[in-house]
Amino acid sequence: MTSVSAPLESLIDVLVIGAGPAGLATALGLTRAGIKVRIVDIRAQRISVGHADGIMPRTIEVLDSYGVSNELIRKSHHVYAISNYNYDPSIDGIKYASRVPAINEPTARYKYIATHNQGFIEGLLLAGLEDANVRVEQACKPTSLELSSCEDELKDHASYPVKITLEHLSAAPGTPSSEIVHARFIVGADGAHSWVRHMLGIPMEGDSTARVWGAIDFTPLPSSNFPDWRNITTVNAADTGIMLIPRECSKVRLYIELGSVDEFEQDDRGRPDTSKITADKLLDIAKRAFKPYILETTPDKVEWWTAYIIGQRVATRFCDRGRAFIVGDACHTHSPKGGQGMNASMNDGHNLAWKLAHVLKSWSPMALLDTYEAERRPFAQELIAFDRWYAEGFNAESRAKLVREKGLEVALTGPAFRTFSALTTGIGIQYAPSIITSQVSPTVDVIKTETSPFTLTVGKRVPPYALMRVADCRPINLQDALPSDGLSKLIVFAGPLTSLEEKGRLAEVEEALRDIFHAFGTDKFRLLVILSAVSDDMSYKDVPVGLRKDWTSILVDSTSSFSNESGGAYAAFGIPVTGKFVAVRPDGYVGTIIELSEMRRLDDYLRGWLLRSSDPL
Amino acid sequence: MTSVSAPLESLIDVLVIGAGPAGLATALGLTRAGIKVRIVDIRAQRISVGHADGIMPRTIEVLDSYGVSNELIRKSHHVYAISNYNYDPSIDGIKYASRVPAINEPTARYKYIATHNQGFIEGLLLAGLEDANVRVEQACKPTSLELSSCEDELKDHASYPVKITLEHLSAAPGTPSSEIVHARFIVGADGAHSWVRHMLGIPMEGDSTARVWGAIDFTPLPSSNFPDWRNITTVNAADTGIMLIPRECSKVRLYIELGSVDEFEQDDRGRPDTSKITADKLLDIAKRAFKPYILETTPDKVEWWTAYIIGQRVATRFCDRGRAFIVGDACHTHSPKGGQGMNASMNDGHNLAWKLAHVLKSWSPMALLDTYEAERRPFAQELIAFDRWYAEGFNAESRAKLVREKGLEVALTGPAFRTFSALTTGIGIQYAPSIITSQVSPTVDVIKTETSPFTLTVGKRVPPYALMRVADCRPINLQDALPSDGLSKLIVFAGPLTSLEEKGRLAEVEEALRDIFHAFGTDKFRLLVILSAVSDDMSYKDVPVGLRKDWTSILVDSTSSFSNESGGAYAAFGIPVTGKFVAVRPDGYVGTIIELSEMRRLDDYLRGWLLRSSDPL
Ligand SMILES: Cc1cc2nc3c(=O)[nH]c(=O)nc-3n(C[C@H](O)[C@H](O)[C@H](O)COP(=O)(O)OP(=O)(O)OC[C@H]3O[C@@H](n4cnc5c(N)ncnc54)[C@H](O)[C@@H]3O)c2cc1C
Ligand SMILES: Cc1cc2nc3c(=O)[nH]c(=O)nc-3n(C[C@H](O)[C@H](O)[C@H](O)COP(=O)(O)OP(=O)(O)OC[C@H]3O[C@@H](n4cnc5c(N)ncnc54)[C@H](O)[C@@H]3O)c2cc1C
Repeated sequence: MTSVSAPLESLIDVLVIGAGPAGLATALGLTRAGIKVRIVDIRAQRISVGHADGIMPRTIEVLDSYGVSNELIRKSHHVYAISNYNYDPSIDGIKYASRVPAINEPTARYKYIATHNQGFIEGLLLAGLEDANVRVEQACKPTSLELSSCEDELKDHASYPVKITLEHLSAAPGTPSSEIVHARFIVGADGAHSWVRHMLGIPMEGDSTARVWGAIDFTPLPSSNFPDWRNITTVNAADTGIMLIPRECSKVRLYIELGSVDEFEQDDRGRPDTSKITADKLLDIAKRAFKPYILETTPDKVEWWTAYIIGQRVATRFCDRGRAFIVGDACHTHSPKGGQGMNASMNDGHNLAWKLAHVLKSWSPMALLDTYEAERRPFAQELIAFDRWYAEGFNAESRAKLVREKGLEVALTGPAFRTFSALTTGIGIQYAPSIITSQVSPTVDVIKTETSPFTLTVGKRVPPYALMRVADCRPINLQDALPSDGLSKLIVFAGPLTSLEEKGRLAEVEEALRDIFHAFGTDKFRLLVILSAVSDDMSYKDVPVGLRKDWTSILVDSTSSFSNESGGAYAAFGIPVTGKFVAVRPDGYVGTIIELSEMRRLDDYLRGWLLRSSDPL
Repeated sequence: MTSVSAPLESLIDVLVIGAGPAGLATALGLTRAGIKVRIVDIRAQRISVGHADGIMPRTIEVLDSYGVSNELIRKSHHVYAISNYNYDPSIDGIKYASRVPAINEPTARYKYIATHNQGFIEGLLLAGLEDANVRVEQACKPTSLELSSCEDELKDHASYPVKITLEHLSAAPGTPSSEIVHARFIVGADGAHSWVRHMLGIPMEGDSTARVWGAIDFTPLPSSNFPDWRNITTVNAADTGIMLIPRECSKVRLYIELGSVDEFEQDDRGRPDTSKITADKLLDIAKRAFKPYILETTPDKVEWWTAYIIGQRVATRFCDRGRAFIVGDACHTHSPKGGQGMNASMNDGHNLAWKLAHVLKSWSPMALLDTYEAERRPFAQELIAFDRWYAEGFNAESRAKLVREKGLEVALTGPAFRTFSALTTGIGIQYAPSIITSQVSPTVDVIKTETSPFTLTVGKRVPPYALMRVADCRPINLQDALPSDGLSKLIVFAGPLTSLEEKGRLAEVEEALRDIFHAFGTDKFRLLVILSAVSDDMSYKDVPVGLRKDWTSILVDSTSSFSNESGGAYAAFGIPVTGKFVAVRPDGYVGTIIELSEMRRLDDYLRGWLLRSSDPL
């Protein structure tokens, strides 16, 4: 029998430390790819109010791909517009300046920012995990972390080179509270003050900004007569900058610039002492800033508030020895006003999870994991560049300077949002060329993004588009045919199926794919056929059996008389009717595009990052 | 202390007997209107397989209005197309004839039939009830029913003239199993062999048809090569008629015509003995009928099957003494192939619930309840007329006769679906003039349904249409602004709000409504304003406060640059820019349409069925 004091000892494929948006997204991605995962958090309970609140269009698409976006779409507030009010000395108050769409990306499936509290959003991911019987181990604190330095052990993907001691803070009396976990991989998702990052000795680059901010969540009384409180609104008042974020259930969040760090006394850690800032004080500043509009609430309608200094920092590395990864705030922090923290964090997890899963399943070499930092670190740096620029606009002094030097528009945050929209919405992200994102086929047409914003582009996410499913004439959005299940999607844009000769053409593609499946196995892929047209006397059963996963996998670019959708996908995607082959990464980004006549190039592409059945591990 | 043998005795506003689709819909409607309800069912457990399976477009809209359609839309199979195959002697097998859209109603919000098993669909309503802590009392059997004949008691809406004895079949030992319930109203939702109907002595009109049918649910093996098994398909084979209904999770239901009643021996109740019909026998017939296509399954993939004779009957009355009502199969039965049983049943409940609630809350006189039978009985009769015509098409003999006499099309069921589409989809239902559905304003333009199928029409449901919510620029479907909450919706189509003068015009409408609210109270209504246009410098706060429920209640006919929607609602609805007033019943049907200049007519309309604060009860 185990004595009470002897620590438990266990093995796990992946241990995730921290159950915020980053950790939960990582765990969900791993779970959906069939990987056993444990996720622990130091907190005894989940948070339920405050914190991050804006989900960007690309993140909604990603949540869609996990099938967990539903409640978000139903219950969040949808921000369609961004308004701007500026101080006008002639009325000694603020005045309406502009109201513009929040989202300008033509390919965004959702043309809004979804706002809700962070606890709710974490709940979406938790529900997804619970479907797979994964539960967060709360009140669990890691106390030691050892990562092997033995090259052989690190290289052997089946080894367990990470050793962590966990302390179960509320272990039942008589049960051991300590546990030693041996993991193949560890993911540090433990927020801005990451213990994992600290243990790995990864430094952060960048610094705190010189300004102090407040944030407060409350419900205004009906007597409040500001007309734009259901839109994101930037208020450039005389002596402060405020950003209003409308939230679920008629709530609002205000971000309030409180002034320079120098204006605050220092606490004993040498940081500005914000302890004298209260909810009342924040509301007072806001009331003054909104003049001549009336802003009223009562103490019981104030849900949450905080004061903070923005740290704009990126970790020098996102990975240690190929076995320990950091995600989310643990590796990058920025100003909450840009609404990026939670979005970037979840997308880190989305990016990392399928890669870990591929290595764990012996599908890919360890080198695949290098692409995580290579893809996410430059993105984090870009976000911070945006963040600095954006935060600037809220500072009364620097704003005045910008207006003087470059005209009013530069200082408005609406246009800033638009300029950086591809980045902040997440829609425009294009991962750089790498083993998983490469234009292997030199003969494929140069991408003409001018032609259509929907053009399929290597490194960009597959845009949403309505197609028709042949077997049941149902409109299917292409994104919905690409679930985040850990598998690569092989899409055959097969041209028309209107005669028996065309069946012959498809037989050639079938042949080519047979070799691929023979070399790499079929279990890593989900095969889709998208026809340009199909005649009434042909059916999905006329697609050669080797190209047909099941009745759901044959789509056609036409929704004819069966629905309101319009067709035109081939043209929008930039695919000629002669067809093309598109490989999509498990996270929904285009991996490569190949001519149907050059299918052997697919082998070149896949060999770059997938193991063949005959390859040594 | 209560002795074990003494029955419990209790009071309730409404007792619903039977928790099928009709009873559950009635209970949900009552609950949402704030009425206390109990619902009992004789079964020990809910059904989980088989039975009805098709939800028509209008029913999805109704489920939407209760906020319970979500899972249906996500998890059901969506039928967009109806295919037809006919026997061709030259190949001694069936041959593809046509494939047409299942739904041709241009205003249908959902252009498909949603299929899933009856247990799942009941689950949607149950979840809605559970939100209000209402649970079905299973294994509960009514054993006696007494309805007072005392006129005074019956007329006094606050009395409890219904006395029912309930037997709790699985009462815990030591607790009384009998209970006497005194109810203000009872609703019999206990299916085709309704005990309630029997106790009330209400006869059915109509008869059983002369034909025996089988139904079977199974998953075909992949080797089955019939290409249309994901569409509703009518198969007119040589010696039988089959209707295929695709279902959730790659399942199918087949309805199979088994022949005339005379071909069966009679059982001891004098009914055709169908005991020799087995799943294998049904599959054998189907296999022959589908030749030259292969249809294969295995016994473990057969989920449910049955054999039955269609009864096409309507109860002579749907109500007894204003206190006992019957809904669903208890008052009308038809052939399942038309897919109407469950839909009509739920819509009975939807129609009845708000009326009962209005009377129970002393908002309306008892006479309101007469409109239930007046509206639903003619509809049931029409359905049966359709049903006879439709079932005919499946009978090999009568089909041959129809083809001979009127050409092939008449015999196809696709066109039949189209001809009766307004009826079967539920979209075209128009309730006849009555106290709740009346064109009180003779000056309102004659309705020109030719102009636009979306024209608002007294007696028809409010069609779906995208508007923009002024406060947050969000596209809102008008139907979503009309939830089934038991309240009437007063819609002011207020014209433009682009200058201060227009505010003055709105003040006049505000004045008129103030009188209405004074007379009838505000708690019975939900007020909506739909502007034809709004300028940037005006906001929802410029709508007079008496017309403004909250920030969600001001909509505008324009979605401008903020989304993909197109505007044009005024034109589609047939509303001039000078505006109009539309009263919508709590169930989403247009009650009346009035000129803004004649708002006193609203008082005429409402007085017809709502009590004024000063009216005697
Ligand atoms: C007070 C506060 C307010 C914020 N406000 C906003 C906002 O308004 N808008 C916005 O966009 N962003 C805001 N952020 C940032 C945003 O919440 C983060 O970008 C986002 O939550 C990052 O997700 P994450 O999972 O990386 O980190 P977190 O959400 O911080 O999650 C980290 C998790 O790790 C756990 N943890 C920490 N240390 C350990 C440990 N040693 N062992 C085990 N578990 C540990 C924590 O309990 C926590 O659950 C705020 C953050 C904080 C802390
Ligand atoms: C075996 C079968 C197969 C069917 N197949 C189809 C089909 O394929 N397609 C289709 O459209 N329709 C079909 N129907 C009809 C369809 O199910 C009905 O139109 C629909 O269910 C009617 O709903 P309802 O609530 O009025 O009645 P039901 O669904 O019959 O519900 C009545 C409820 O009352 C309960 N009940 C009965 N008697 C009592 C009592 N004395 N006390 C308390 N509770 C009682 C029953 O247990 C039941 O739960 C089928 C019906 C049956 C019985």
